[in-house]
Amino acid sequence: MATRWQLNDALARDSHHLGKWGDTHLLLHRNAALHWFMLVPETDCLDLTDLAKAERDELLDQAGILGRFLKSRLSYPRVNIGALGLVVPQLHLHVVGRRPGDPCWPGPVWGQLEHGLTYPDQDIVTMKRELSSIRE
Amino acid sequence: MATRWQLNDALARDSHHLGKWGDTHLLLHRNAALHWFMLVPETDCLDLTDLAKAERDELLDQAGILGRFLKSRLSYPRVNIGALGLVVPQLHLHVVGRRPGDPCWPGPVWGQLEHGLTYPDQDIVTMKRELSSIRE
Repeated sequence: MATRWQLNDALARDSHHLGKWGDTHLLLHRNAALHWFMLVPETDCLDLTDLAKAERDELLDQAGILGRFLKSRLSYPRVNIGALGLVVPQLHLHVVGRRPGDPCWPGPVWGQLEHGLTYPDQDIVTMKRELSSIRE
Repeated sequence: MATRWQLNDALARDSHHLGKWGDTHLLLHRNAALHWFMLVPETDCLDLTDLAKAERDELLDQAGILGRFLKSRLSYPRVNIGALGLVVPQLHLHVVGRRPGDPCWPGPVWGQLEHGLTYPDQDIVTMKRELSSIRE
């Protein structure tokens, strides 16, 4: 399956590809209004609740790493998790840093975040390096 | 902690309490436009990514049970998962049946579902019984 699997075009277009953790692609939404990660495991399964336990555990462990990064490194007090996949069916788990006063607070980010800020190239380089080192 | 823990008033008001699975309260949103479950574990932890692994596993196992119930018993093709907790900070995991043409499709349900249909009392009785038997 992995040889046929391809990252969805819309996910690729809307995000920075920060690297891979095992078989999971680590993406950062291009909108820099808040830090919005997406974890995309190489699976044909569409819904989180259908993942085999080992795959689900790995994905949630990775979400936990991002959650700690958002809180400890980027000072977000809260972290939102979501698996929707209706506009883009390919399974992807959203891990989003939230703080009072962010552009969507206290609502959800999905479908609510207007186009806005973008990341300077250097921020992406730095984040790739930091997230890579966390997994070493 | 469990002796002090109380189900958030807003969650209780907006939902039918279907029972408990271990230390997790199983709620069904009162809006019957689509089947929208909420799992509320008795914890003071606010974010899913901060839960200890054993608690997270239990909660995700329970979400898996609901996901299978939504798909096999209620014929939903898709299941959405979300942990937001910004309006109501108490940790609660949304497990929502989704189908093309539902009132929010393909968008998220959070903040988008208008007041509408309610469940007949008998449906709640039946669902309590069915979900209780799944866990026996």
